[in-house]
Amino acid sequence: MDTQSVGLEIYQLIENLYPICRSITGDGFRGTMQILQGYIPIQLHEVPTGTEVFDWIVPKEWNIRDAYVKDSKGKKVIDFQKSNLHILNYSVPFNGRVKLAELKEHLFSIPDHEDWIPYRASYYKENWGFCISHKVLESLEDEEYEVCIDSSLEDGHLTYGEYLIKGEIEDEFLISCHCCHPSLCNDNLSGIGVATFLAKHLSQKRLRYTYRFLFIPGTIGSITWLSLNEDNVSKIRHGLVIACVGDPGKMHYKRTRRGDAEIDKAVAHVLKNSGDEYEIMDFSPYGYDERQYSSPGFNLAVGNLSRTPHGRFPQYHTSADNLDFVKANSLADSFTKYVEVINVIDNNKKYLNTSPKGEPQLGRRGLYSTTGGRIDASHMAILWVLNLSDGQYSLLDIAEISGVDFRSIQIAAEALLECGLLVDV
Amino acid sequence: MDTQSVGLEIYQLIENLYPICRSITGDGFRGTMQILQGYIPIQLHEVPTGTEVFDWIVPKEWNIRDAYVKDSKGKKVIDFQKSNLHILNYSVPFNGRVKLAELKEHLFSIPDHEDWIPYRASYYKENWGFCISHKVLESLEDEEYEVCIDSSLEDGHLTYGEYLIKGEIEDEFLISCHCCHPSLCNDNLSGIGVATFLAKHLSQKRLRYTYRFLFIPGTIGSITWLSLNEDNVSKIRHGLVIACVGDPGKMHYKRTRRGDAEIDKAVAHVLKNSGDEYEIMDFSPYGYDERQYSSPGFNLAVGNLSRTPHGRFPQYHTSADNLDFVKANSLADSFTKYVEVINVIDNNKKYLNTSPKGEPQLGRRGLYSTTGGRIDASHMAILWVLNLSDGQYSLLDIAEISGVDFRSIQIAAEALLECGLLVDV
Amino acid sequence: MDTQSVGLEIYQLIENLYPICRSITGDGFRGTMQILQGYIPIQLHEVPTGTEVFDWIVPKEWNIRDAYVKDSKGKKVIDFQKSNLHILNYSVPFNGRVKLAELKEHLFSIPDHEDWIPYRASYYKENWGFCISHKVLESLEDEEYEVCIDSSLEDGHLTYGEYLIKGEIEDEFLISCHCCHPSLCNDNLSGIGVATFLAKHLSQKRLRYTYRFLFIPGTIGSITWLSLNEDNVSKIRHGLVIACVGDPGKMHYKRTRRGDAEIDKAVAHVLKNSGDEYEIMDFSPYGYDERQYSSPGFNLAVGNLSRTPHGRFPQYHTSADNLDFVKANSLADSFTKYVEVINVIDNNKKYLNTSPKGEPQLGRRGLYSTTGGRIDASHMAILWVLNLSDGQYSLLDIAEISGVDFRSIQIAAEALLECGLLVDV
Repeated sequence: MDTQSVGLEIYQLIENLYPICRSITGDGFRGTMQILQGYIPIQLHEVPTGTEVFDWIVPKEWNIRDAYVKDSKGKKVIDFQKSNLHILNYSVPFNGRVKLAELKEHLFSIPDHEDWIPYRASYYKENWGFCISHKVLESLEDEEYEVCIDSSLEDGHLTYGEYLIKGEIEDEFLISCHCCHPSLCNDNLSGIGVATFLAKHLSQKRLRYTYRFLFIPGTIGSITWLSLNEDNVSKIRHGLVIACVGDPGKMHYKRTRRGDAEIDKAVAHVLKNSGDEYEIMDFSPYGYDERQYSSPGFNLAVGNLSRTPHGRFPQYHTSADNLDFVKANSLADSFTKYVEVINVIDNNKKYLNTSPKGEPQLGRRGLYSTTGGRIDASHMAILWVLNLSDGQYSLLDIAEISGVDFRSIQIAAEALLECGLLVDV
Repeated sequence: MDTQSVGLEIYQLIENLYPICRSITGDGFRGTMQILQGYIPIQLHEVPTGTEVFDWIVPKEWNIRDAYVKDSKGKKVIDFQKSNLHILNYSVPFNGRVKLAELKEHLFSIPDHEDWIPYRASYYKENWGFCISHKVLESLEDEEYEVCIDSSLEDGHLTYGEYLIKGEIEDEFLISCHCCHPSLCNDNLSGIGVATFLAKHLSQKRLRYTYRFLFIPGTIGSITWLSLNEDNVSKIRHGLVIACVGDPGKMHYKRTRRGDAEIDKAVAHVLKNSGDEYEIMDFSPYGYDERQYSSPGFNLAVGNLSRTPHGRFPQYHTSADNLDFVKANSLADSFTKYVEVINVIDNNKKYLNTSPKGEPQLGRRGLYSTTGGRIDASHMAILWVLNLSDGQYSLLDIAEISGVDFRSIQIAAEALLECGLLVDV
Repeated sequence: MDTQSVGLEIYQLIENLYPICRSITGDGFRGTMQILQGYIPIQLHEVPTGTEVFDWIVPKEWNIRDAYVKDSKGKKVIDFQKSNLHILNYSVPFNGRVKLAELKEHLFSIPDHEDWIPYRASYYKENWGFCISHKVLESLEDEEYEVCIDSSLEDGHLTYGEYLIKGEIEDEFLISCHCCHPSLCNDNLSGIGVATFLAKHLSQKRLRYTYRFLFIPGTIGSITWLSLNEDNVSKIRHGLVIACVGDPGKMHYKRTRRGDAEIDKAVAHVLKNSGDEYEIMDFSPYGYDERQYSSPGFNLAVGNLSRTPHGRFPQYHTSADNLDFVKANSLADSFTKYVEVINVIDNNKKYLNTSPKGEPQLGRRGLYSTTGGRIDASHMAILWVLNLSDGQYSLLDIAEISGVDFRSIQIAAEALLECGLLVDV
């Protein structure tokens, strides 16, 4: 697999998705799923407005065609066609003339970054509004403006995409990404892109676990999925929420609520052995959809593996989170690390040494290799796997205890399996 | 509560108690209790001499009226009326004339601090003696002296005080202080003073635990109390021994013998979040009455929260531990920290999130608060309490895991209880 | 015990053993055992060639009388009589004339240390060869050489020595050393020497544990012993593999596979309290016979206490590991530390405080000792032993928790046992 070219392909997908005005419901979300279906056979689900999902109710479906604000000379001072960030996401329809003072109650800007447009939404409180650069806000004259928001907020559906790749066992590895943001690249297009190519990659491999990819609107999407799939949630053994994986920052991993789940150990091992800088953070109940998967009624082993986390880069939820901010090589690197983590989890089994009393004689099996009187690394890996394969330690445990990287431990185990010195537990 | 004025009131109580010559038995101890009864309704217990208390026997009661040493010219070179520290505590009666050499076998001084009078006692080995400054000792001429010790050591009683403040449950929080030292301020008047005002403060509050205050002579007092109350000792869930809480030093906490009791966690949390310097030490079997409460036959969860610990300040057990050494603002600060610790313990309950699957929709309950697109601290506290209220974690656990202070977690829990999102376990 | 003279005696034993050409079988090994029998009554075992021992087969017995290489002028350029390291250990018999190029395929040297002869063996792959200094290798002219190896590799026996010192209980402490190396002093004569004198020392003491000393060939010896004694292996409660204890380096301890066995704690305590530098390393499956004792089918609590570990000193497995490299005072120091560790393990019992409620009154038992108003160290040790002797903590646990050295804790326990305040669990 040429990860460099994967990085470029993910970037191209992000470019295609960038112009679409997504929200937690509506045609922007559907159109996004249709583009992804060009890569992987995502199954779409439509959940009707009003469906009760735990403590929540699926909201009305929102769609928007156009929106603008014209000044007294008829000039569009704010134009949805120029950036879909301009509209307060989930704005109700509105047509009317308002004075500047009233208009300002519906305008959002970022005084600290006067050229950037913020991203704001009002899903559960009916409102209308516009997001604009602070520079434009400051330039508005004290006159009357014509406001037009050609949107609809009506009974409809919440849409989400799902793709299941079956492995040897029914136990699942969940990869979940939110797809509800409009023209924002790192959060959330990078996650969508890497998830799509991971799914494509895994669909061509022989896998132990079953992999479930969810492409959902944030919060309401994961709550809806959990509510509709409550009976099957217990199959999820490991999971990662993917977002913010395209920026140039170092990798960050937020542990699962459990704190010491297998996925926590696998990610820590991969990051530690990557040679790159990284940071591991404890779970907190704020963030992306791991909040829902980690609610106390589920407590799933779902972590969040990203580059710079949400809120820690100034471009977060602004027009500056654009196609310049995400990089093909960052996407490639994130993709590679996800592949490594999945390799660890998928191969992290426990084996039994079939010759556990004393060391077996490796020489007559061609497994004794020394270089100039010194033991070499592959032989050391073999000794570790033999010594710790007592049914208690998994290959990842052995890698961590020995300080040997998982891939080397995996190769040693394969050699020992081949000559019968190791068997499945 | 105005803690600054509490500090002054405690200081005034210490001033009143200072002149009394206390010991482990006798009228000095009784007089001390009578003064405290002006503040709180302490119940007095009188245990007869000869009562067997575990491995010990309640000793004879000691009382003293006067004591002096006169030189050949009839001048009092040592005078009990000037400082009750001059008498070796528990000195047997003595009248006679002795040469300097013999007298010196009964004199105690501190060569390193030539102006200070040491405090010494001889409870279990009959002896007489005087404690004097080294300067006076050095000035004594080689002549005959008249020694008079007008004391009595006779069958009588050991006195101790007890005050029980009933709470919702019978489980108890024990606060114990020794009251057997004569004119010494930090050890032990500061402990008596802060304990008295804590008791007064708690008697006006609605409490979950029952609070038991013990005002006892050191060692023999706690052993006597444990022996007479053996059947009820198991009610004690938490405890603190209070002493040395008036000096200007930082707070020190000596952990319980268990090392990870709830009281250990509560004190550590309060000190960590106080913003002040502090030190936490492991249990050791030397110190105050926590030695007895922590004997292996009881192993109670009793720690020792003080300012500078016994033996670590040079004034310890000398006349320099006087009214200048303790400070009203140190007493106020110690009082405040004890109040905080008690607040943590008394409110440290486990709750259940009634909407544990996914997050509940906080917006429609008025609990969703953000400031300028950023989550605020009180909302974060609410998310933590919801996420961790699965029956496993107490509010203190949640405070520690989240890094949020206990008071904020407590406020979040109260808001959630009010809207029904939390219930008692 | 005068440990300094013990160091000299061990050194003399090493001098006697140095010239012998040992291997994993044969008369060199037997001759070594005979010398040791002059010190301790070692029992010899002879295991026939072909005996199946777990995954291995006892090999043919190897003996050697002479070996040399002569140049075309008849001069011996390599001569076994000058150093038994010259022969590739386990070389098959060979007589013939070979060209330099062919000869070189059978020569081993160390380019980095051109004066040193390496030590090499070929036990399980039939081969012949010579080990020489790189300087000699370089000087060989391109001519024909006469090679003579007067050895035998025939059915015979594997020999090992065993010495059991019975204690009060059948539970065993194993001390194992390999004895299969020719003229090499630190690895392995220092281990043989210290083990012999430890056995001699212990045979004169009253012991709780039974001590088993094994003098065996490396790898095949421990595997053979384990195979023949499989039913009794469970008696081994603690063990140490001894090797490399004569060099001037600091002590190193390699933990047991369990990592927190009593022997691990005992060694750590002794090294920490020794005042000398030391290093503690986690278990790894490479090293000496702890590899076999720690194989997953046995997982015995056997550590490895040495000075500089194998492979970490440049002289390792070369002619420079000679009588100059080991020092009498290093041997004495190693001996002393083994004695201390054995004292800890042999006396590390749990006791019960017979007066567990409150402190017992130590004064009337003569156990209350203070110096100038301050508690002294021996009294503190008594308080610790009383407080923690609840049946849960051993004396070593008490030493570790209190920070008091084991010998002081042991003395306190003996005093308390004597006056009845402590009893055996």
